[in-house]
Amino acid sequence: MPKPSIKALQTAHEKLIKARNKVDPRFHNGIYERFVNPIVTRDHVPLEWRYDLNPKTNPLLLERLGVGGTYNAGAIEMGGKVLMVVRVEGNDRKSFFAVAESTSGIDGFRFWDEPVVMPETERPDTNVYDMRLTKHEDGWIYGLFCTERRDPAAKPTDLSSAEAQCGIARTRDLKTWERLPDLKTPSPQQRNVVLHPEFVNGKYMLYTRPQDGFIDAGSGGGIGYGFCDDMTKAVVADEKVFELRAYHTIKEVKNGQGAPPIRTKRGWLHVAHGVRGCAAGLRYVAYAFMTDLEKPWQVIAAPGGHLIAPLKEERVGDVSNVVFINGMVERKGGELLLYYASSDTRMHVARTSIERMVDYCFGTPADGMRSYACVQQRLELIRRNKALKAKTKTAKG
Amino acid sequence: MPKPSIKALQTAHEKLIKARNKVDPRFHNGIYERFVNPIVTRDHVPLEWRYDLNPKTNPLLLERLGVGGTYNAGAIEMGGKVLMVVRVEGNDRKSFFAVAESTSGIDGFRFWDEPVVMPETERPDTNVYDMRLTKHEDGWIYGLFCTERRDPAAKPTDLSSAEAQCGIARTRDLKTWERLPDLKTPSPQQRNVVLHPEFVNGKYMLYTRPQDGFIDAGSGGGIGYGFCDDMTKAVVADEKVFELRAYHTIKEVKNGQGAPPIRTKRGWLHVAHGVRGCAAGLRYVAYAFMTDLEKPWQVIAAPGGHLIAPLKEERVGDVSNVVFINGMVERKGGELLLYYASSDTRMHVARTSIERMVDYCFGTPADGMRSYACVQQRLELIRRNKALKAKTKTAKG
Repeated sequence: MPKPSIKALQTAHEKLIKARNKVDPRFHNGIYERFVNPIVTRDHVPLEWRYDLNPKTNPLLLERLGVGGTYNAGAIEMGGKVLMVVRVEGNDRKSFFAVAESTSGIDGFRFWDEPVVMPETERPDTNVYDMRLTKHEDGWIYGLFCTERRDPAAKPTDLSSAEAQCGIARTRDLKTWERLPDLKTPSPQQRNVVLHPEFVNGKYMLYTRPQDGFIDAGSGGGIGYGFCDDMTKAVVADEKVFELRAYHTIKEVKNGQGAPPIRTKRGWLHVAHGVRGCAAGLRYVAYAFMTDLEKPWQVIAAPGGHLIAPLKEERVGDVSNVVFINGMVERKGGELLLYYASSDTRMHVARTSIERMVDYCFGTPADGMRSYACVQQRLELIRRNKALKAKTKTAKG
Repeated sequence: MPKPSIKALQTAHEKLIKARNKVDPRFHNGIYERFVNPIVTRDHVPLEWRYDLNPKTNPLLLERLGVGGTYNAGAIEMGGKVLMVVRVEGNDRKSFFAVAESTSGIDGFRFWDEPVVMPETERPDTNVYDMRLTKHEDGWIYGLFCTERRDPAAKPTDLSSAEAQCGIARTRDLKTWERLPDLKTPSPQQRNVVLHPEFVNGKYMLYTRPQDGFIDAGSGGGIGYGFCDDMTKAVVADEKVFELRAYHTIKEVKNGQGAPPIRTKRGWLHVAHGVRGCAAGLRYVAYAFMTDLEKPWQVIAAPGGHLIAPLKEERVGDVSNVVFINGMVERKGGELLLYYASSDTRMHVARTSIERMVDYCFGTPADGMRSYACVQQRLELIRRNKALKAKTKTAKG
C-alpha cells in the first residue's frame, strides 16, 4: 500500500476545514436555507486524535482510534463565535463530547485541541451523548446530556437493556466541566432533558421526556416539564406532560425537546424532534412550536407537520432516516442558526431568522389530524390563491 | 420499448467484467485500501443465467430468471486465481452458490459456466447461504454454510419461523460437491460455523455461533468452538463460547466468525461480524481479533471497535446498514484481500497485508468499554502526538 505522507493527510484535512459553505440553490421553502456541505463530519476530527503520528511507533501510519460519526451537537454563541459541543462517536461506539468552533457558524468549524473530559459520578457512565447547552441567567453554562448505563436489572444474557438518565454538568468556558449529580424525576428513565434559560417564579425549569424503558417511551405521553430549586442536586418532584404525542402525526411514537427555547416577542420558540415508526424502523424529524412567555409550558402555536426532514444525502447514515436537533443559536440582527444532525452521522446547519420562525409557527395551520380535514386546509389555501390571481388580473385589466 | 440486441447486452456485460478497479483515493485509514467499484454485482451474473436468448421462445427478450443480489462470498486461492463462492440470490429470494474467478483478486471477476449444484440431505434445504471455504490440511476443501428450513414447530399461520443449521459439503475443485450430514451441536440452532484450517490435537476444530432462535442469538453469548473427530458425520458434543458479545460494543446483539482464520507469526488472524441494534434495525460491521497459535480459542489481541463499517454506497441495499465478511485470501508477499459484502447486495474487496492487520490487531487499543476511559485513550494518543510535534520543533530549532 503506498503510504501517503502525514503532510498530505494534513493538507487534505486543512482544505476540508477551510472549504466555504454555500446555500443549496436547489432548495426553497422560505422558512430556512439549507447548505450544500455538512458542517462537521468525522473527517473534520483532527488527525492527532486518530493517528499515532510517530513513525517509530506507527511505521505503517495506521489509524489507531477511528471515529465513526460527529452528530447531535449542542450549540452556543460565546465571544462572537459559534461553539458546538459535538457528540463524537469512536469506532468502538462510545460517544464523547468535543467542542468545534466557527466564526461564521456555517463553515470553518474546527475542533479544539482536546476533547472534553467529562467527569463521572460515583456510577460510571457507559456512554454520554446529545448535550443541550443552556446559558442560564444564573451565570453558568449548563450541559444536560444523556448518560447511559447497563440496566442493573437486565438478565446476564440480555446485553442490550440499558438505562438512560439525565447527566448534568456546568462550566464557564466549555473547557472545565463540573459534573453535578444526575437529575432525579418520578420517571424510571429520562432522555432529552433541557434546562430553560431563565428562572420561572424563582425556580429552574426543566423540560423532560419521561419514558418507561430505554427505547420505549411507553406511557410517557410527550415532552414534560417540572421545576427544581438547586441544579447542584437537581430533583424534579412533579413532572407534567404538556407537549403531547399524537396518533398519526410526526410525533406518534416519541418526541423530545431539542435546544433550549429562545425568547421572542411573541413567545418562546422551541425546536423538538418527533418520531414515528415505519417498515424501515423509526423516522426522526424536527418540528417547532411556541409557548407562552410567562408560562413556557403553555403551547400557543403548533404548526402542523415537520420543520426539517432528512433530504438527499441526509437520509442515509449509521442510523438512517433521522434528523435530530439539539442546538440553535441566535446571532446579531435576529439571524437564527439551526444545528441539526442527519442519520447519527454528521452535522448540518439551516439558516433562518427569529422573524421567519415566528411567522412559520403562527402562520402554518395546525395539524388537521385526518386526511379530509387536511384536504380542506389545502383547498382553502388553493382557493385563496385562485381568488388572488383573479383579483390581480382584474386590477391589471 | 426499444429492444436492445443481445449483442449490445453482451458487450455491456463484457465491459463491466473487464472494467479495471481503482483504489478509492478519498479514503485513508492506513489499515486497508477501499476500491471504487464493487467486484461482483448482480449485473456480473451471465446473461445466459437470466435471459432465454432464443428469439423464438423469447421474442421480446425478457429476463426470465432475474437475480437480486450477489453477496456474502467465501473465498479461496487455487491455481493462482482467486475463487469466490458467491451467494447468488434470485428474485424469488432463494439463494444458491456460484463460483466467480479472478486473476487479480480485485477486478475481472467472472462467473463459471454454471452455478454450483449443492446436493441436499434427506431433509431438503429451503435456502442455503454464506459459505465459508476452508482448505483443510486433510486435503479436502470444505464448504460450511447455513441451511435454512421452516421451523417444524411453527404454527400454520406463522410463515416466518425458521431453523438455521450448519450444512457441510466437501470438494476438490469447487465443481463437484459431496454433501455431508449437517453439523450436530448442543445448540438448538447454528449459524456462521467455520472450520479451522488445521487439526488441533488431532481433531477438527469448528467455530460455532450457538443461538436460541432463528434471528435471536438469545443466550448464545458469542462465538464458540468445539472439536469433532469426523467431518463425514460431524458432531460437536461440547461447545464453549470464547469470543463474547458485550454491552454497548459493536457486537452487543450478535457476533459470528467470518472467514477461516489465517496463520501469522504472532497468532491466528480472525475476521468476524458484530451486530448492534439501532432505531433503523440491526447494524452489521466487520471486526478483527487474533488468537493463540497453539490454542486458537484464546484471544490474544482484540482491537476496539469495527474494522469495516458500511460507507457511502455500501450503506444501502436489499438489507441496509450491513457489512458482512466471510472470505479472505492471503496472496503472494503477504498481501491480504478481505472480501466483504455490503447490505446483502454486492461484493467488495479491501486490500491490506498480513503485516498491517497484525499491526492493527496489536496496535489498536482494546475497547475502553465506557466513555470516560475511551476519552483517556484518545487523550493519551493526542498528547503523545503533541509531545512529538514539540520535539520535532525543538530538533529543528
